[in-house]
Amino acid sequence: MNPADFPVQNLPYGVFSVAGGPRHAGVALGDRILDLTTLGVCGGLFASGNLESLIAAGPEVWSETRHLLTETIEGGDLHDHLVPMTEAVLHLPCPIGNYVDFFSSLEHAANTGRILRPDTEPLTPNWRRLPIGYHGRARSIVIDGVPVRRPHGQRGPGDFGPTRRLDFELEVGFITGPGLSLGTPVTASAAESHIFGLVLVNDWSARDIQAWEAKPLGPFLGKSFATTISPWVVPLAALAPHRVDPPPQHPPPLPYLTPAGKSIDLHLEAAINGTVVTRTNYRHLYWTMSQQLAHATSNGANFGPGDLFASGTVSGPTPDSRGCLLEITENGQTGEYLRDGDTVTLTAWAGGDGQPRIGFGTCSGTVVA
Amino acid sequence: MNPADFPVQNLPYGVFSVAGGPRHAGVALGDRILDLTTLGVCGGLFASGNLESLIAAGPEVWSETRHLLTETIEGGDLHDHLVPMTEAVLHLPCPIGNYVDFFSSLEHAANTGRILRPDTEPLTPNWRRLPIGYHGRARSIVIDGVPVRRPHGQRGPGDFGPTRRLDFELEVGFITGPGLSLGTPVTASAAESHIFGLVLVNDWSARDIQAWEAKPLGPFLGKSFATTISPWVVPLAALAPHRVDPPPQHPPPLPYLTPAGKSIDLHLEAAINGTVVTRTNYRHLYWTMSQQLAHATSNGANFGPGDLFASGTVSGPTPDSRGCLLEITENGQTGEYLRDGDTVTLTAWAGGDGQPRIGFGTCSGTVVA
Repeated sequence: MNPADFPVQNLPYGVFSVAGGPRHAGVALGDRILDLTTLGVCGGLFASGNLESLIAAGPEVWSETRHLLTETIEGGDLHDHLVPMTEAVLHLPCPIGNYVDFFSSLEHAANTGRILRPDTEPLTPNWRRLPIGYHGRARSIVIDGVPVRRPHGQRGPGDFGPTRRLDFELEVGFITGPGLSLGTPVTASAAESHIFGLVLVNDWSARDIQAWEAKPLGPFLGKSFATTISPWVVPLAALAPHRVDPPPQHPPPLPYLTPAGKSIDLHLEAAINGTVVTRTNYRHLYWTMSQQLAHATSNGANFGPGDLFASGTVSGPTPDSRGCLLEITENGQTGEYLRDGDTVTLTAWAGGDGQPRIGFGTCSGTVVA
Repeated sequence: MNPADFPVQNLPYGVFSVAGGPRHAGVALGDRILDLTTLGVCGGLFASGNLESLIAAGPEVWSETRHLLTETIEGGDLHDHLVPMTEAVLHLPCPIGNYVDFFSSLEHAANTGRILRPDTEPLTPNWRRLPIGYHGRARSIVIDGVPVRRPHGQRGPGDFGPTRRLDFELEVGFITGPGLSLGTPVTASAAESHIFGLVLVNDWSARDIQAWEAKPLGPFLGKSFATTISPWVVPLAALAPHRVDPPPQHPPPLPYLTPAGKSIDLHLEAAINGTVVTRTNYRHLYWTMSQQLAHATSNGANFGPGDLFASGTVSGPTPDSRGCLLEITENGQTGEYLRDGDTVTLTAWAGGDGQPRIGFGTCSGTVVA
């Protein structure tokens, strides 16, 4: 935990408990948590000790609440409502309804295509036409710090055992607000009004299991054993000073995927046992959040409070900005996959260098046998 | 609705309301619903008007409840607690947590492989080694009778519009009970103790959208616009007299997929606008429910109350037993996909012909533009 992640300009939301007590809603503030459930300034919004009423209330209430909290923090005596973060246990910020994982990094798609299908074009013909995605297992999403068991599975024909190619994937996901019912596509221009906030996502992957199972219907057990998210949901409003144009898109996207909207200048790092193994940036992503949500609902699919839409591995254009070990090690040729006992820690921040730092805390997990 | 589906030997569970009133739990009994919430014989199990306490209670309570209901029905005066089914509105039997769809029919996999990839082996090399599956969108699961909008989407490069290849898929799914936490695989021999009951599933599919989007990560928007399930959850106990051996499996499955367990002699039909277009049987499925659940948890993935695991399209060995229009029409070559206004109705029953008929009711939906 880095207290510099959480200045008053950030105010990310989470759920915590102290000493086995009930869960309360809170915002991270330096090395403390402001207890929103005891603070009680936002009507009964946090009375139930979770974020569900806030998430379901929609963007106007998100904005009002943020303003109110900023004023309260800047003006008031918070002493009775500040909990040292070291004394708190953090929980999933909300029940994750449905989980979609995209594949929106051109560099990741191209690298994995080149490594796994060397005899074909690295990018499939659809890649530049639509933000490819698939559904992941929402139930196996866990919070920062939960150990991740090395999964068993079929590593090939007749070969069952613990995966030999356990990988992390450095991703960023957004959590949606109240949502829309079936038959109501979200326009790209309206998409961000449905985004409650962002979290870091480690989409743990067993590459041997995934490679063997995934034809023709995609990943299943190679991914479903665990997905880790960071505990603090960073509001999109906190990232407003850091919005940047996304990379140019060729061919031009279809009308329902326009306007592309903005990306975020968000520095991302992955470390194994404290050693940074990749430094990249969310701004490299080819497809934006607006395009992802517009695409995911273009067929009329519904979404709701607490649905998670993750970016897919965020890789950059340079070798030191690759977002997973499949790419970093060329599928085990130039380095090792994860070993038992390894701890993978993802971190992210925007700003810093004189500007307020908008940090995400950590998204970590240790591999156990 | 066919009253013959619901003799006292069936007792499938559902959730209903009358005239805009509150939801109650019930069992179907002929052309009536026995209101379990007002009946009150099972302690407070149905006091909340849903099936969630029952589903979460596990197999011993499922068995006790079934015995108690059978005795009550055979012995008592139920008059005040019987609601004519024509007066009731049926609702989803429980919140569907996570949704997995398998691909467990050899005939379906072989037919679709031959039709869609004519230059390759119809079955991928993994098909006979593991029950291939993927995650679907749980949030867009709807109940029998809800209209299904023809989805828009990318039908190919630069081509966005309503799908031209809207299909149904005739499937059977099982709903799990309390479940197990992360890191606890279910053995094949114990798998059925986690199955609360079965429903019919129509996994509506937009074949043009699916074909264009699905490489390399599988189906997404071609499926996520709607999945229809039947309203009555048929307990596995009701199907006990109809358990049969599954087809032989070659090569022999790996140990974690044994014993295969039993299949079900369950007749399945799909009709379009009242005309039956396919007659097949669940017993043709290559992979069993026990193998499906053992596989889905073999990597330690968790599951919980209300998770749905569907079979994939159930096709049989003959041309008139193909379970979807992709197969029946050879991808539109010998017939048409669904038109606006078409109503697809799935039905299923075991027994009959002198034995008590264990029916599933209907799983229907009308296509709207």
